[in-house]
Amino acid sequence: MDVLFFAEDEDAPAWADVLASALPEARVHRFADGDKASCDYAVCWKPPADFFHGQSCLKAIMNLGAGVDAILDGRALPAGVPLVRVTDAGMGEQMEEYVAWCALRALRRTDDYARQQARSQWRQLPFTPRASFSIGIMGLGVLGARVARYLVGMGFAVRGWSRSRQAIAGVTCHAGADERAAFLAASNLLVCLLPLTEATRGILDRDLMLGLPAGAHVVGIGRGGHLIEADLLALLDNGHLAGATLDVFAAEPLPADSPLWRHPRITITPHISAQTVIEVSMRQIADKIRRIERGLPVDGLIDRVRGY
Amino acid sequence: MDVLFFAEDEDAPAWADVLASALPEARVHRFADGDKASCDYAVCWKPPADFFHGQSCLKAIMNLGAGVDAILDGRALPAGVPLVRVTDAGMGEQMEEYVAWCALRALRRTDDYARQQARSQWRQLPFTPRASFSIGIMGLGVLGARVARYLVGMGFAVRGWSRSRQAIAGVTCHAGADERAAFLAASNLLVCLLPLTEATRGILDRDLMLGLPAGAHVVGIGRGGHLIEADLLALLDNGHLAGATLDVFAAEPLPADSPLWRHPRITITPHISAQTVIEVSMRQIADKIRRIERGLPVDGLIDRVRGY
Repeated sequence: MDVLFFAEDEDAPAWADVLASALPEARVHRFADGDKASCDYAVCWKPPADFFHGQSCLKAIMNLGAGVDAILDGRALPAGVPLVRVTDAGMGEQMEEYVAWCALRALRRTDDYARQQARSQWRQLPFTPRASFSIGIMGLGVLGARVARYLVGMGFAVRGWSRSRQAIAGVTCHAGADERAAFLAASNLLVCLLPLTEATRGILDRDLMLGLPAGAHVVGIGRGGHLIEADLLALLDNGHLAGATLDVFAAEPLPADSPLWRHPRITITPHISAQTVIEVSMRQIADKIRRIERGLPVDGLIDRVRGY
Repeated sequence: MDVLFFAEDEDAPAWADVLASALPEARVHRFADGDKASCDYAVCWKPPADFFHGQSCLKAIMNLGAGVDAILDGRALPAGVPLVRVTDAGMGEQMEEYVAWCALRALRRTDDYARQQARSQWRQLPFTPRASFSIGIMGLGVLGARVARYLVGMGFAVRGWSRSRQAIAGVTCHAGADERAAFLAASNLLVCLLPLTEATRGILDRDLMLGLPAGAHVVGIGRGGHLIEADLLALLDNGHLAGATLDVFAAEPLPADSPLWRHPRITITPHISAQTVIEVSMRQIADKIRRIERGLPVDGLIDRVRGY
């Protein structure tokens, strides 16, 4: 079996070795080294435009990440070849932590206390009980549902919103355009874990964020393309939003001259809300390839029309 | 029934009204108004030295807080009168959140990311799996045990240390002087929730903190008297400790000229890790008084010799 590998990461050569260890029955060809053998499988993250050129025998394309927006966006994907993404693979645990960190900060007003510390000010602020602090999660796929369950376990009030109705124990689930306003109005902290598609690009705009209660917080994980940065800045500056924590951006790395870096109400992390756990991801990809070889179904098959 | 009330708080008059509502069968006398009637019960927080003067008929003294160090410290407490503290009363939930916030910050290195943001630096730091991040809790009383259980529920590795051996599901429990070194060596984040007594005053000293692994974090909740501030500063400055989050201090409010305010590795909050939830506390005190009136045992009875 031959596998073509590419990842846009400085550690890509090491990742290829991990894949080779997880799938010893395969020859792993590193595209970046000029090895363009005709292969049975492609394993890739943000491959270059000519990655699939001449690959006429692919049985499946494995996307080395949860979001497939980058691979669906303008690349000449071979038609009819199944596109499969990694599902969770260690990312869910990190997303749980990241959103919990944002929620605790907002609930306990720790950013306000940090501002007080900067001026050596000792002042106790009013206290909000945890159960009356509501976290709204847009997108209840594998990661969104996992984060929702974790926050319920921590004792938060959790709401979810998705295109089709979901049911998650302890989570108040809203669905579709009709229920979006009620979902937003009850969310003190908004988290977007939708896939990035043409339907969701720019969804975090002025109109949507104005639907949040005054003093709400916005958490930007998932994809930078969801957020209209100028709208966020305007709503932070006019006081409608109390703060935002952003991990993903329209352009990454975030340019040094971006106004987001220096905004006093914005916390920035460098796309680390869910780092790829490469051993777990490669073991999962190897398992999926073996299942396909045996004619078994696999998780994470992408509907190219829907976009996720 | 007559109840004498005093609390060192600007909202004390309102608190007295809440107590009167919770215990309508009693006359509530406000000591601060000069009302020094002979009473059946005293309900107090940090009362003045002459608070108990002439109170010869007290059936019990109710301490409006979890720690009794302030009331045991130098005040002329009537001998032989049971001293009872509030138990949890809404503080445990807040302590859970506060320690979870500290743990997530240390695990995900968010303070390091904040320093990077201040210089517009985009750099991903190595990632630590949650289960390999160990939180050590000194003191497994009502609050310590509750915080430990919460963190276990969040998927952290949790250790506890206490004078006498405790057993808490999912928590590795250490006991006594002999097991202290092993407890410390395995704690990436140290939390002290011991009572403040002569045996624990200054317990967070150089020697103890040197027993933590390099790069550990210290969380100062409970009482400021546990911590030797100069030792903490020295171990932060020489790099042994990565950071400290302090909510309680030897002197409160923390003086504006304290070096703690401006230290780049110290996060300060103004004694808010567990604010008194006055309605819950007063209902609990009213219930305890009714139980005593009926000759029933109550939680939170203090052993004055032990000091908690």
